[in-house]
Amino acid sequence: MPAGGALCSNVFSMLAAIARRNQLVVLQKSLPRLRPGWALLRVRLAGICNTDVEILRGYHNFSGTLGHEFVGDVVRVANVKDRAWLGRRVAGEINLACAGLGFRKLCGYCRRGIPTHCEWRRVLGIIAHDGAFAEFLALPIVNLHRVPDSVSDEAAVFTEPIAAACEIIEQVKVSAHREACVIGDGKLGQLIARVLRASGLRVVMIGKHADKLRLARAAGIETAKLSSRRARRADEFTLTVEATGSPSGLALAQRITRPRGTLVLKSTFHGAANVETWPIVVKELSVVGSRCGPFAPALALLRSGRVDPRPLIARTFLLKEAAEAIRYAQRPGVMKVLLRA
Amino acid sequence: MPAGGALCSNVFSMLAAIARRNQLVVLQKSLPRLRPGWALLRVRLAGICNTDVEILRGYHNFSGTLGHEFVGDVVRVANVKDRAWLGRRVAGEINLACAGLGFRKLCGYCRRGIPTHCEWRRVLGIIAHDGAFAEFLALPIVNLHRVPDSVSDEAAVFTEPIAAACEIIEQVKVSAHREACVIGDGKLGQLIARVLRASGLRVVMIGKHADKLRLARAAGIETAKLSSRRARRADEFTLTVEATGSPSGLALAQRITRPRGTLVLKSTFHGAANVETWPIVVKELSVVGSRCGPFAPALALLRSGRVDPRPLIARTFLLKEAAEAIRYAQRPGVMKVLLRA
Repeated sequence: MPAGGALCSNVFSMLAAIARRNQLVVLQKSLPRLRPGWALLRVRLAGICNTDVEILRGYHNFSGTLGHEFVGDVVRVANVKDRAWLGRRVAGEINLACAGLGFRKLCGYCRRGIPTHCEWRRVLGIIAHDGAFAEFLALPIVNLHRVPDSVSDEAAVFTEPIAAACEIIEQVKVSAHREACVIGDGKLGQLIARVLRASGLRVVMIGKHADKLRLARAAGIETAKLSSRRARRADEFTLTVEATGSPSGLALAQRITRPRGTLVLKSTFHGAANVETWPIVVKELSVVGSRCGPFAPALALLRSGRVDPRPLIARTFLLKEAAEAIRYAQRPGVMKVLLRA
Repeated sequence: MPAGGALCSNVFSMLAAIARRNQLVVLQKSLPRLRPGWALLRVRLAGICNTDVEILRGYHNFSGTLGHEFVGDVVRVANVKDRAWLGRRVAGEINLACAGLGFRKLCGYCRRGIPTHCEWRRVLGIIAHDGAFAEFLALPIVNLHRVPDSVSDEAAVFTEPIAAACEIIEQVKVSAHREACVIGDGKLGQLIARVLRASGLRVVMIGKHADKLRLARAAGIETAKLSSRRARRADEFTLTVEATGSPSGLALAQRITRPRGTLVLKSTFHGAANVETWPIVVKELSVVGSRCGPFAPALALLRSGRVDPRPLIARTFLLKEAAEAIRYAQRPGVMKVLLRA
């Protein structure tokens, strides 16, 4: 039996921005249905990510409500035992794995504690599960993380991409490095640079855009223009993160990383890149693919103020303006665009 | 003062096979000169590697005596204190680093104990140092490894490529895996599969050539044709080694490796490959570039008989037939071709 309460029982439909034939369409649709162990969340704020744009270009073959970065309030839970979550402001992990999907028998990945690679995973707003560009969304309670009161909605909406940046800290022994190079001055690159900086590294960002590099400098990050002599030096960094979102970044990353160094790949752009792979072999680089990350350290960074993503907000649109918002988000130079439900 | 002895002092010239304008030319040239701490070696047997072919195609921009796989005898040493090496049968590491080059101040890589990435490195028959397709070659004593008496010349000549295979064992914690997939049934793939098998792994080789896969099966390696259903299965292996020597191998390696798995890159072919890199990110693969490896474990594997490379020998030519030999080595289906000085 659902344990309702926070949401009037006469709310049956909601506004949602749906990917349909490579277009974003805003329409009324019914509220998501809850499975046992799930919660219904009212979205406060959602963020537009490049992945949303990629989906609208036809990747992931997803048709449904877009959006996976959000902060919201729990307004309904499926199980009475989860009532304590009602009214809580939360961020939510985007991968729905065996436990959250209610499977009794866990897959090999879930058994080994890596549900982000669950064999059956669905992903909020990306794979087979409606997302956050809506008034409401549904997620398993196990995916939820309470947002500390001191963290504003405008900061909390960045929890998911900051968690993705924190994944690097999980995968790479950061203490073995003194400095890191982040290639790419876009949204994800900016967050990664801030997280690495907060981890005690000297961070150099290489990018194309003077205004974006300025944003980074304001956060204590050194910067170099892609066209500068510095960006052309070989074998400079023991740790490099490729976050350009374009094929060109990998070649530069290979060149700038020292022999036996670590090169973290964060870009998930689709389409083949023309890449020479022999430098990886000759320099014996470790190339580490890095995707979703842990929410707890991300929220801790936000609470402590050691990472403040709010200067990255370019503009906030209303949910009903989602189509315009996603066009705006693709303009050159525009950083994070938010949607308010 | 050189401490001569094993070599008649009236030997001044030798036969050598030289890369010149993308052609292999056999001619008489003067003996290599020794620096302090170096030894002169009379080559018994040398092996032709795909890198030699690549060099003749213009890569590495090397002009000089080709060849880096060999077994030979020490016939002269530059320093009296090294006399004990005279007459010894040896294999030789191919990277000449700070210590071997006689630099008093070591570079950062040599200081950290990774001379294979020395800033000033020269490489036997590849970078700025004459190689093994000659009657004699010169190497620093620190590069030499005595070949156990029980190991034949025909086996010892494989020490260098087996060491390259052993590098994988240095870089990857093999005990964390039960099985490995080697993609590529060529010379290097064959040795890698044997070394991984000797390390206790179940090994599956995926290749194109029935006869090469048969060679692998004779060494206890499971095999699958590239065109088989098995080779098309995704997410099969936690450890995959790409050793095809061609751009096509990487995409298959990405597909066949499990999420969070390790993908070792061994191919050093030049030329850009059209590669989708997003699977590395989405599956969070660790891609490890792997080049030269340690000689001691390679010689131990040869001595114990746990790796026997001799079935890979296709044909042995005389050094003076080097040009013909290298053409023969490029024929489809031909495995290791040797040169006898």
